[in-house]
Amino acid sequence: MDSVISHLKSNFNTYLEELKEYLRIKSISTLDANRSDMIKCADFVADKLRHAGMSRVEIFQTARHPIVYGEWLGQPGKPTVLIYGHYDVQPVDPLDLWHSDPFEPVIHDEKIWARGANDNKGQNYVHIKSVDAYFKTLGTLPLNVKFLFEGEEEIGSESLTSFLKTHQELLKCDSVLVSDTSMYGRGIPTITYGLRGLLYMEVEMTGPDKDLHSGSFGGAVANPINELAKLISKLHDKNGKITVPNFYNGVQKLSKAEKENFKRLKFSENAYAKEVGVKKLHGEKGFTTLEKLWTRPTLDCNGIIGGFTEIGAKTVLPSKAKAKISMRLVPNQDPLKIAKDFAKYVKSLVPQSVKLDVKMLHYGYPAVVPFGSKALNAGAKATAKAYGKKTVFTREGGSISIVVDFIKNLKAPVVLMGFGLDSDDIHSPNEHFLLENFEKGLYASAYFLDEFSKA
Amino acid sequence: MDSVISHLKSNFNTYLEELKEYLRIKSISTLDANRSDMIKCADFVADKLRHAGMSRVEIFQTARHPIVYGEWLGQPGKPTVLIYGHYDVQPVDPLDLWHSDPFEPVIHDEKIWARGANDNKGQNYVHIKSVDAYFKTLGTLPLNVKFLFEGEEEIGSESLTSFLKTHQELLKCDSVLVSDTSMYGRGIPTITYGLRGLLYMEVEMTGPDKDLHSGSFGGAVANPINELAKLISKLHDKNGKITVPNFYNGVQKLSKAEKENFKRLKFSENAYAKEVGVKKLHGEKGFTTLEKLWTRPTLDCNGIIGGFTEIGAKTVLPSKAKAKISMRLVPNQDPLKIAKDFAKYVKSLVPQSVKLDVKMLHYGYPAVVPFGSKALNAGAKATAKAYGKKTVFTREGGSISIVVDFIKNLKAPVVLMGFGLDSDDIHSPNEHFLLENFEKGLYASAYFLDEFSKA
Repeated sequence: MDSVISHLKSNFNTYLEELKEYLRIKSISTLDANRSDMIKCADFVADKLRHAGMSRVEIFQTARHPIVYGEWLGQPGKPTVLIYGHYDVQPVDPLDLWHSDPFEPVIHDEKIWARGANDNKGQNYVHIKSVDAYFKTLGTLPLNVKFLFEGEEEIGSESLTSFLKTHQELLKCDSVLVSDTSMYGRGIPTITYGLRGLLYMEVEMTGPDKDLHSGSFGGAVANPINELAKLISKLHDKNGKITVPNFYNGVQKLSKAEKENFKRLKFSENAYAKEVGVKKLHGEKGFTTLEKLWTRPTLDCNGIIGGFTEIGAKTVLPSKAKAKISMRLVPNQDPLKIAKDFAKYVKSLVPQSVKLDVKMLHYGYPAVVPFGSKALNAGAKATAKAYGKKTVFTREGGSISIVVDFIKNLKAPVVLMGFGLDSDDIHSPNEHFLLENFEKGLYASAYFLDEFSKA
Repeated sequence: MDSVISHLKSNFNTYLEELKEYLRIKSISTLDANRSDMIKCADFVADKLRHAGMSRVEIFQTARHPIVYGEWLGQPGKPTVLIYGHYDVQPVDPLDLWHSDPFEPVIHDEKIWARGANDNKGQNYVHIKSVDAYFKTLGTLPLNVKFLFEGEEEIGSESLTSFLKTHQELLKCDSVLVSDTSMYGRGIPTITYGLRGLLYMEVEMTGPDKDLHSGSFGGAVANPINELAKLISKLHDKNGKITVPNFYNGVQKLSKAEKENFKRLKFSENAYAKEVGVKKLHGEKGFTTLEKLWTRPTLDCNGIIGGFTEIGAKTVLPSKAKAKISMRLVPNQDPLKIAKDFAKYVKSLVPQSVKLDVKMLHYGYPAVVPFGSKALNAGAKATAKAYGKKTVFTREGGSISIVVDFIKNLKAPVVLMGFGLDSDDIHSPNEHFLLENFEKGLYASAYFLDEFSKA
């Protein structure tokens, strides 16, 4: 084991240069303009898997972005771990808020800065390199490894979802290892056992059939911006509860044990408010911030647009206004059922003077991984060794819809071993990843393969 | 008189070609990119005034866009009319909804199609040509004429407002003639005697100090889009009344005579709803549509933007959301007082978890011109002759803030002699102007000069 770790240590700067190359590829999955970058990025991953010693590497075409698969099954009788990552990234707007080019990684303040530095290229690349280090030093792995990289995580993992259904034999494994979550704090090794689900909707309100002069028509013709604002304002009640009918059906009360676990984490509301730059926190009455973030469903507008939005004034009564509205879900909420209830509900809220179109953009189920599995324990041991501290167990507010599908299709426990920090600005301008976490991530990955091979 | 009218008739096609040239100039006053077009357009107007026989033409520089002045004072002892127009136009977005280039005028369906075709180039050009026709046929005018063209009407007429204060002697006159309003219906000669005022505000809501991941932070950090929507939804009560404190102070009740005048206009709510393409009309309870449009103050969002607004999904909890909110005002509302009340009120509505910045973009006072003045009667006679029908008196929902300043600074009655139709799509894609109204406008202008010279 020591030789693997020391190999990882002495090759750190080489890995960092390779990561930069990975980050230079503009693999934004949601934009059609970046289609060829997606192909380039899948090729990059496949190439690195080949170099890391995988005996079989294959790129599977899908309806949208390719899936990259790699395997080395040279330890029959030993467990098999499937390592998941996603090579796609979020869009980069607003571009003017970045301090450097999002696709030209730079290193300063002991961090690497670029879109995808944390989410997910920085986090997934550690696994490719830890496997590589085993082969370079020991010439073998202590267990069987499968890699599965997708390019649609940021847009709902549609292709991988069906791939999982049709490739259960290929992907068969004893645990799934995913590094796409956050640590509880800097230097605190963390295993996450719960994720929220997601339902992403878009609503478009139409008033008059064309833009009108707000002076000549205002006051007698419904304004779709005003009406959309009214609609959005009705989606929460005054206690911050979401008003969509049946929304909270099935939502579980927090167990006493979990409440106590949360208390032990000594979360500081003040530090958190300071970190996000607000004077006061917000949200559903009757819950602590950790409970709100990890265990309660929420509803946020992710975007809104309508009318004249340039600098200056235009006295227009617009024809249309549009909003993207997403909900984070918790066990046992069903996104598809809620999508129907949501559509019916919002349509019932609008007056006859406007029209409303509702569509679902994507969704993912919530997941909670049961405590006590061997894989989870191996993850806790591995991260504790890498960071030299006791590992904490957390839940997380974000969604990795595919985790639910892993559990459902592969019947294997999923280990969420994150190396990111909430302050890494993923999905925001100036995304970054601590070099310290890239390094410890390499070690944790190597330790996990060792620990799980003995589990 | 007959020779003037027949000259106008036989030169109609030439005038139309000149109007096209005028419309090709992209004089969008609100966009910095069009600064040089504004200068070009002012030069065009000055040139046409010189050709129309004005003995003095001058371009006045201002802090923003030039003012064009022209005069012919060859009839001492006779009244002086000041003819006002604006050479600036509205922006053209959304460009993809135009059937032809907004700045390449085309003629079909007996209409001319271009940005500014009605508002205001088509409407103001008739006056330059009617004066021109007098000189070409009779070699003189029956009264004294002053022309005043500005380039900031669509953005609040700031420069002209101060120009009026400092040039009262230059602009001294017995009436002001303005063609920038709509006719009550096709073929119905119309004099407008009331206009609403305007207050145009912009509010910017800030939540977290940067864009955040809506999964990791949603539910504990206030979302500026959701909060802005709540704020907007509170600006009207359930009866459609505006909730800004003191907003309705001074708003006059409609007189019995005016109510009866409105009834005589036999307004069809159904035809109006069909025209704007809505199933149902909307607005303040207890008022007819004409009353809402012409005599009641209103509040409309003219634009809103925040978060991710491209195609697809981005799970962002945005830092900022912004809205443009304008109010149409009626006598005796004071826009500056309301701007203060509005700012104070909206700030009181937001929770401590967000910040709100409020600024005023521009404003204009409402105006009602008293009945019975000679100028108003001359206007009614002139339009009746041009259209061969009895003239109706209306009010209008839009604002021409400068009209109030004319009344205040020049102490002269303002004749609002409009040739546009509400269906001309001013401020919208596919703005157009009926050739029939361009033609009758030429006659009405010539008749007005004759009628007012005898008044």
